[in-house]
Amino acid sequence: MSIEQENHHPGDSRFFSKSGPYTIEYLVKETGAQLTPPRKDVDTVEFSGIAPLQVATSTEISFLDNKRYLPLLAETKAGLVIVAPAFADKVPEASAALVTSNPYLVWAKIATLFYPKDKAKPGVHPTAYIHPDAVIDPSVEVQPFAVIMNNVHIGKECIIGAHTVIEQGVQIGEYCRIGNHVSLSHAVLGDRVTLYSGARIGQDGFGFAVGDKGFVSIPQIGKVVLQNDVEVGANSTIDRGSVRDTIIGEGSRLDNLVQIGHNVQMGRCCIVVSQAGISGSTQLGDFVTIAAQAGLIGHIHIGDHARVGAQCGVMSDVEAKSDVIGSPAMPFKEFFKNVAFLRRMAKSSKGKEDN
Amino acid sequence: MSIEQENHHPGDSRFFSKSGPYTIEYLVKETGAQLTPPRKDVDTVEFSGIAPLQVATSTEISFLDNKRYLPLLAETKAGLVIVAPAFADKVPEASAALVTSNPYLVWAKIATLFYPKDKAKPGVHPTAYIHPDAVIDPSVEVQPFAVIMNNVHIGKECIIGAHTVIEQGVQIGEYCRIGNHVSLSHAVLGDRVTLYSGARIGQDGFGFAVGDKGFVSIPQIGKVVLQNDVEVGANSTIDRGSVRDTIIGEGSRLDNLVQIGHNVQMGRCCIVVSQAGISGSTQLGDFVTIAAQAGLIGHIHIGDHARVGAQCGVMSDVEAKSDVIGSPAMPFKEFFKNVAFLRRMAKSSKGKEDN
Amino acid sequence: MSIEQENHHPGDSRFFSKSGPYTIEYLVKETGAQLTPPRKDVDTVEFSGIAPLQVATSTEISFLDNKRYLPLLAETKAGLVIVAPAFADKVPEASAALVTSNPYLVWAKIATLFYPKDKAKPGVHPTAYIHPDAVIDPSVEVQPFAVIMNNVHIGKECIIGAHTVIEQGVQIGEYCRIGNHVSLSHAVLGDRVTLYSGARIGQDGFGFAVGDKGFVSIPQIGKVVLQNDVEVGANSTIDRGSVRDTIIGEGSRLDNLVQIGHNVQMGRCCIVVSQAGISGSTQLGDFVTIAAQAGLIGHIHIGDHARVGAQCGVMSDVEAKSDVIGSPAMPFKEFFKNVAFLRRMAKSSKGKEDN
Repeated sequence: MSIEQENHHPGDSRFFSKSGPYTIEYLVKETGAQLTPPRKDVDTVEFSGIAPLQVATSTEISFLDNKRYLPLLAETKAGLVIVAPAFADKVPEASAALVTSNPYLVWAKIATLFYPKDKAKPGVHPTAYIHPDAVIDPSVEVQPFAVIMNNVHIGKECIIGAHTVIEQGVQIGEYCRIGNHVSLSHAVLGDRVTLYSGARIGQDGFGFAVGDKGFVSIPQIGKVVLQNDVEVGANSTIDRGSVRDTIIGEGSRLDNLVQIGHNVQMGRCCIVVSQAGISGSTQLGDFVTIAAQAGLIGHIHIGDHARVGAQCGVMSDVEAKSDVIGSPAMPFKEFFKNVAFLRRMAKSSKGKEDN
Repeated sequence: MSIEQENHHPGDSRFFSKSGPYTIEYLVKETGAQLTPPRKDVDTVEFSGIAPLQVATSTEISFLDNKRYLPLLAETKAGLVIVAPAFADKVPEASAALVTSNPYLVWAKIATLFYPKDKAKPGVHPTAYIHPDAVIDPSVEVQPFAVIMNNVHIGKECIIGAHTVIEQGVQIGEYCRIGNHVSLSHAVLGDRVTLYSGARIGQDGFGFAVGDKGFVSIPQIGKVVLQNDVEVGANSTIDRGSVRDTIIGEGSRLDNLVQIGHNVQMGRCCIVVSQAGISGSTQLGDFVTIAAQAGLIGHIHIGDHARVGAQCGVMSDVEAKSDVIGSPAMPFKEFFKNVAFLRRMAKSSKGKEDN
Repeated sequence: MSIEQENHHPGDSRFFSKSGPYTIEYLVKETGAQLTPPRKDVDTVEFSGIAPLQVATSTEISFLDNKRYLPLLAETKAGLVIVAPAFADKVPEASAALVTSNPYLVWAKIATLFYPKDKAKPGVHPTAYIHPDAVIDPSVEVQPFAVIMNNVHIGKECIIGAHTVIEQGVQIGEYCRIGNHVSLSHAVLGDRVTLYSGARIGQDGFGFAVGDKGFVSIPQIGKVVLQNDVEVGANSTIDRGSVRDTIIGEGSRLDNLVQIGHNVQMGRCCIVVSQAGISGSTQLGDFVTIAAQAGLIGHIHIGDHARVGAQCGVMSDVEAKSDVIGSPAMPFKEFFKNVAFLRRMAKSSKGKEDN
């Protein structure tokens, strides 16, 4: 089969194993969503999987979360579609609608029923190197060529990916998933922490003084704390603290290629999208969102529920619940007003200015 | 020898092995470029190598592709210089000119004659871990500590770098080159695909719903398709699809530290320069160029042959063949007009505004 | 102990081993700083460690470098505080003040006394793969699963981290520290070079010509030279030269996730902060600072002591000693004047423009 003939239906069996099928009754019960309108076969049909609107079949479940895709809803063959109340009447007649105020959450729950997370397969691969003074729960899975040094503690049912290196003294809670090629040092992890491949956690921060003959490194003697349910994306980097700790608060999620400087302290359920960077000693409250490629200077404070837009350059404190964008950062409304004003003014100067 | 005394002539024999020498007749035949003016010894001289204008000798070949370097052309000792027709008469008398409308392409061809790509040295290094259910062509080279899991297929004459991890079910075509420390999962690769060191391909996209107690992950059940001749730079990250596939089209090239979100679909021969990022579900046509550090939001479409400038922030569709820059993105001309207008206006307000 | 109860005092003994204690006499002698005012017990007290102002105890040393933290100075319990002359009289009565014109440098020196760098523990881990033609000083430490290929030379007392791959012909000076998971090829390193985990040094630059059927790679036949005392951050990427060398000058420091294109030549003691990128063939003088997320196009020159601001987009040469910011780059003063002017003008147009 050539690559052009690849089947693009999700859940390719080469990579994923599927659970189910599930009855509608079970799915309604598990998600709390409401079935409407009832279809004749609602009691007997078994749903075998999930798929996007454009490829789903009559025994598959799909969802609509972005009104941009309403044209696809009109043509879907999905047997069941998860939608918000506003779109319930847009679901085609041949499909049932599973209505909920949070379609994406119901989709998450149903998708997880069909594709539950892999569990740890207890055991240490014979090629891994484990220091005799490491303490590893027997339920932990350690993959090929992992390196686990002295006085590391790893709690139950963790998965330690191939080629990952865990340095002396690192503490890891339960049910954590550490990807491949991760570097982990000077760190304490809570439960259910997920680190994707190539994440670098705990290296020295970028700290040095200027001496007579060049730069002089400053020992970085803090650590990294990743609280429960934190996720860190592929190839992201989190420096350990210089004299305090770098702390990523409970439930926060960092995307790929994110940089976190030393001493950064982040509250609960923050989101940091790919290629954003947070400089040293900056503090984030809870539920802060930092969009892609945004950058924050050091030693500032971002209030709870603040949202920092993509590519934003933040040079001073941001108040709770505010939305900023631009470089330097300003309120969303002001930024777009400025942009529109400048475009209009420059355009109207055309006759006079062009040469 | 101290590091200050390093020889900066290219092709250092510690790192490169050189083919040749080649006669001018052979080089002309292989490249289709035209020799002018003929030199007396054109039939007998053998060229032994290539070098930049400033260090090339009389048996070496050089090239001029950027008029910025014309002063170097005037002083070169190179025996042969590849140039565009416009610069043919600028080549010094002691050198011959190899004239072509595409000097950089001819340079590529000649450089490849002297420095052909390494071929796979068939065999699996004894330290590698190969799952018994992997299917690997006997011509493949597998370097130390590579990990290849069950049901992976690898076609002929591929090179799998040291410490690379290839997860269950991954399909790799022929003549692919996978660097060191690569993580590769949930992926199907065509022929002649090149992945540089530290690339992360196929991990979960950044997809989660907001639940009562925090974020809820959404199983990501698509895959990554890298079509023929795709190249992915060092430490770049390509997330697998959520419900569709993430697709990088034939011949496209991604530089280092690039981020590609889930479900991105890229056409043929696109270029994505270092540290650029493309958010989930965005689609690129063919021959699109995304310059360094540009960022594209999700769910938009970039037309064929469009060019997105460095650091550009793209928040909406871009038409085919258009050039955009700025954050938010606008046409090149408008952007630079706005910049010039603002600078002029702010400057002229100097007397009144300064305090 | 749950993660919430973690002790955030620096120097956690699970990760760090501490030297000392030290007398004030010794510290004054080692640093050249001046003790003032003298305390009664100055001759007899021994200082046992270092800590930030808010947690330091009477036998610990702290420092103030940023006036933002003056409120913490007023309340500190530290026995000794390193300060600039201007703040000497702000040190609480119960503390002694160690006064110096460069508090951060004195802090670096004292911190290094308490936490000296780890020394190489001579020996090759039995799981490492060393090619028989590699030449490694017997004082070198080689950690698990490192791969060192033919004709690599490594000088005395280097540390080669777990899982690092050093390709054919690479030359490494003395006292270098190579982190985990580093890829190192086509490179010559001076003494005391530090590479953090996941750094990719020496891969092909992003060089290709446009042919009839797609892109044609150009062999990259230069190398990477990292001079003495260079540091490269985690997951940063430095491409080798195409026909010249990529050179990072003595004492320069690159932060995490930095991209350096082929043929870049950087002078002495430059600083490149995280997520910044420098395109091919650009040259930096000495003591240049490139702030976070800045981007430089190729083939330009940045003068000595120039400073490029965060997120700056540099499209042309920058003069020595100048400060630029913005995208496109302009002088600091002009940039902020433009920003202020636009905000004011757009605001004053409010009545007329809003709809």
